[in-house]
Amino acid sequence: MSSSLKRFLIGKPLKSTELGEQKLGKLKALAILSSDALSSVAYGTEQILIVLATVGLVAFWYSLPIAIGVLVLLLALILSYRQIIYSYPHGGGAYVVSKNNLGVNAGLIAGGSLLVDYILTVAVSVSAGTDAITSAVPTLHNHNVFIAIILVIIITILNLRGVTESASVLAYPVYLFVLALVILIATGIYNVATGTTQITPPTPIGTVVPGITLFILLRAFSSGCSALTGVEAISNAIPNFKEPSDKNAAKTLVIMGTILAILFSGVTFLAYWYGITPRAEETVVSQLGSTIFGRNFIYYFIQATTALILVLAANTGFSAFPLLAYNLAADKFMPRMYLMRGDRLGYSNGIITLGLGSIILIIAFEGHTENLIPLYAVGVFIPFTLSQTGMIIKWIREKPKGWMLKLTANLIGAIITFIVLTIFFLTKFAQVWSVIVFLPIIVYFFHRINKHYESVGEQLRIDPTVEPPKIEGNVVIVPIAGITKVVDQSLNYAESIGDLVIALYVAFDKESELEMKRKWEKFRPTVRLKTVYSSYRSITKPILKMIDAIEHKAKENNHTVTVLIPQFVTKKNWHNFLHNQSSILLRFYLIHKKNVIVSTVPYHFQK
Amino acid sequence: MSSSLKRFLIGKPLKSTELGEQKLGKLKALAILSSDALSSVAYGTEQILIVLATVGLVAFWYSLPIAIGVLVLLLALILSYRQIIYSYPHGGGAYVVSKNNLGVNAGLIAGGSLLVDYILTVAVSVSAGTDAITSAVPTLHNHNVFIAIILVIIITILNLRGVTESASVLAYPVYLFVLALVILIATGIYNVATGTTQITPPTPIGTVVPGITLFILLRAFSSGCSALTGVEAISNAIPNFKEPSDKNAAKTLVIMGTILAILFSGVTFLAYWYGITPRAEETVVSQLGSTIFGRNFIYYFIQATTALILVLAANTGFSAFPLLAYNLAADKFMPRMYLMRGDRLGYSNGIITLGLGSIILIIAFEGHTENLIPLYAVGVFIPFTLSQTGMIIKWIREKPKGWMLKLTANLIGAIITFIVLTIFFLTKFAQVWSVIVFLPIIVYFFHRINKHYESVGEQLRIDPTVEPPKIEGNVVIVPIAGITKVVDQSLNYAESIGDLVIALYVAFDKESELEMKRKWEKFRPTVRLKTVYSSYRSITKPILKMIDAIEHKAKENNHTVTVLIPQFVTKKNWHNFLHNQSSILLRFYLIHKKNVIVSTVPYHFQK
Repeated sequence: MSSSLKRFLIGKPLKSTELGEQKLGKLKALAILSSDALSSVAYGTEQILIVLATVGLVAFWYSLPIAIGVLVLLLALILSYRQIIYSYPHGGGAYVVSKNNLGVNAGLIAGGSLLVDYILTVAVSVSAGTDAITSAVPTLHNHNVFIAIILVIIITILNLRGVTESASVLAYPVYLFVLALVILIATGIYNVATGTTQITPPTPIGTVVPGITLFILLRAFSSGCSALTGVEAISNAIPNFKEPSDKNAAKTLVIMGTILAILFSGVTFLAYWYGITPRAEETVVSQLGSTIFGRNFIYYFIQATTALILVLAANTGFSAFPLLAYNLAADKFMPRMYLMRGDRLGYSNGIITLGLGSIILIIAFEGHTENLIPLYAVGVFIPFTLSQTGMIIKWIREKPKGWMLKLTANLIGAIITFIVLTIFFLTKFAQVWSVIVFLPIIVYFFHRINKHYESVGEQLRIDPTVEPPKIEGNVVIVPIAGITKVVDQSLNYAESIGDLVIALYVAFDKESELEMKRKWEKFRPTVRLKTVYSSYRSITKPILKMIDAIEHKAKENNHTVTVLIPQFVTKKNWHNFLHNQSSILLRFYLIHKKNVIVSTVPYHFQK
Repeated sequence: MSSSLKRFLIGKPLKSTELGEQKLGKLKALAILSSDALSSVAYGTEQILIVLATVGLVAFWYSLPIAIGVLVLLLALILSYRQIIYSYPHGGGAYVVSKNNLGVNAGLIAGGSLLVDYILTVAVSVSAGTDAITSAVPTLHNHNVFIAIILVIIITILNLRGVTESASVLAYPVYLFVLALVILIATGIYNVATGTTQITPPTPIGTVVPGITLFILLRAFSSGCSALTGVEAISNAIPNFKEPSDKNAAKTLVIMGTILAILFSGVTFLAYWYGITPRAEETVVSQLGSTIFGRNFIYYFIQATTALILVLAANTGFSAFPLLAYNLAADKFMPRMYLMRGDRLGYSNGIITLGLGSIILIIAFEGHTENLIPLYAVGVFIPFTLSQTGMIIKWIREKPKGWMLKLTANLIGAIITFIVLTIFFLTKFAQVWSVIVFLPIIVYFFHRINKHYESVGEQLRIDPTVEPPKIEGNVVIVPIAGITKVVDQSLNYAESIGDLVIALYVAFDKESELEMKRKWEKFRPTVRLKTVYSSYRSITKPILKMIDAIEHKAKENNHTVTVLIPQFVTKKNWHNFLHNQSSILLRFYLIHKKNVIVSTVPYHFQK
């Protein structure tokens, strides 16, 4: 039943050879991998204005030069990641770049912060989208957490169905959002240009603002940089692209950068021109929409697609996280399970981990994940800075044709991202200090995992110089609870594989001990019966003790020790409750505490 | 760690030979086994008055003849259960009596309704006690369910520690409650007798009451009979008594009946004389206390001990339920696990089942278990009626000395309990119909369980006329994932026990299939390697398929099939996450779906 439910939700399994059909074309990839970056247009401008508002409305014209600064950084990031895509066409992005050029720990820091970041992205964006939904339908307001969890589960299932399928379903809202914002910006600029609107900017550009400081401007800039989160996703997910995957990924990156630049600068310019002030009850985009169109159909279209893209920003994480986890697992820094493709050829374990992780965050923060936003901006700018720096090292070391130009792009990128990172720590330390605590812990665990795998590899390697212990015979122990057909059959099997067979009986009182000895004489006088009296009514402990003694003697004679445990297999599941499961416990202890082989002899009940 | 937590909560295990020390003397047994019955004094009178109040205050004098009726029934029950104790000194009460004299189904109906009843008792009494506590400390009011669950857990742990230990702790409150009520009744009667109080009864005995009907009187009577629940507990728990257990149990029963009669008739008489009216906000006992003493220390003492005894009424169930479950399990109507004594010699599984069951009820009814009270009164009167009827049959059949007198006692008892039962169904059908639905279902499951055990016994019995299948050789299959030390050792063992060894390899692509074949030639050319290509990346399915084919052939030649599964045993628990657990899944499928022996070869990592 659980299997057919799985089929219904996930779809029928795909053959490994069908992998090519699961790859993404540019259009679908753009939708899936840019939803995170594009969704930040919905709040990027607002973040800048909120900081400037602390000085006064008069400072709002600064949003324009700040936006230009963000655009310069965007350009540097796009150029840099384009170069990363061509240099590391197998994906892995910041992790691989940092590891190869700056060393393992830099790579792990970049990889670790991105992994956590994708979990944060999913939690934050789904919560934000849920807020948008419940603002529209207030009766749902008390069910925020529940709705957010359902949304995460839906996105998880769509991604488990496979990347193309989720792309087909989730591409439309992304393009509709772009369309909605293009209509908004075009109409706004047309109105400004033709003078249709009577509105003029509240303060002209260049107005002297008393009280403005470099610190505030830098802070506003760093807040605006939150619009750039998600830019790195494509570099992590190159293997999801159709061949030639590097070229297609690079083109998609450039298209995404262009759209992002147009939308972000358009919204920022119009917000300045229309004198929009950030308000707690209404977003900047909503204010722009209602000023330009009034509350008509187009306004609601803009609002609806904005809510949708906030939810879908999560989907970018679902593409990038599993591939990043794969890369870390391939280098033995994460559990091996992240290497395996699921039924639908996606890395299911990564997808499920991401879904579960974000659900845990949503529950832990009761849906109020806004406080996590600074954390996740920091989480993105650490790998940004590391990967840019890594590329600088690469160019200096390899010096390919035209390397100076490439180095310049990365140098500018590295400097700006490092400044942004520093500003984040200086201005929002109270919200982001946990990064300094958790990132080293995560890196520590990566190393612990790696160490374990290395030591396992060593322990499992066959050493041709060492002769394996010789087996000169087998002792087979059969614990019995009575004289039944199962015991009979188990003893037959034991005699066929063993050189010495011992039956073990645990008695709870002296009478049953004597009675068993008497019965045994008639039943199987050829097999040795050992009985033990258990004064504490425990079965496992006396058996383990007796096996200890036998094992000791057997090892001396190069004999293996096998414990034969009969197990009832019931016809109906509920019948399991009717049988003592002490055999399962005994098996567990034997496997984990002793060096003996445990054989289970199933007895299938016919009814 | 979990083991030392268990030791801390439950105490060190006891030897089977220490069982005698866990038996109860009369004083402790009285406290443990009568708390349920005695606690009903706290609400029995009130139940009568509530029904009479529907006619008017003028009808309250009827509470006196009704109380006499209840006392007659109490006398009949005490005499009857005394005879049951002597006739069935091994306990089991109504279940054993009904089964032996009226047939298996009557026994199962009695036993089933008592089992459910004890679960109801625990839930209802703990909830009532919690209400009393949170009425006193209103800030706790929102945590009712939580507090009730904690109380159940505490009582469960005390009972798991052993019956004497729980008796030592829980006996004081019971005796303090008796003391409190004796003080209340003695002072009240002294006041009435000496005329210290000016109060006279509102309506003299014998006043003609317009509107009173037989139906209302019967209903009031049946409500008053709720004071008799718990009377049967001693007959179920005879094995818990010190030797001579039957004599001690019978004496305890008589003492309990006497105390119950005194307290119940005292409270009823005073309630009538002082003109107490049942009120939703204050119990009858509380009204009596504050009228007689005012709100002084003695009043609060009465209130506190009443709250305590309501909680402790649950404890009676914890003594009776496990022994009843034991009796049903001994007759193979309940899972065998109820036969086993735990570390502290109590029947732990019964204790835990009762605790869990009542916690589930408390959660399901969110602590409002009042509606379950009628249900649980019915659940007691069914076994009352059945056991009385059973005793009648017994006397008629056996005709021992003085049987006419004994028969008369049981006949009166049977008639009254049957009438009460009928009244319950007639007057409270809306609340008790579920008994008619669930009791047959429970009895049905008893039979299903019994049928399974019988059929298992049959299947396991050795039939000397049938020759067991001959074993002429062993085929050993070793699934492998690579060439490692573990595989090497497993193959050595396989060769030592098997006549034919086959290594199985599942490849996810054609290259690794070829490579494994090549490597194998160098590693173990003597062992046959079978490879299979799994296009869906599943390991279990192709292995099961191959084993199918091998099994078929082996069975034809009277060969057993053993599948050898290497299992990594990690040094640290968290390391388990780092290894694919496909071997566990494979083992599960093999045991449950195939008729092969599954051997686990542990490989213990050194670090």
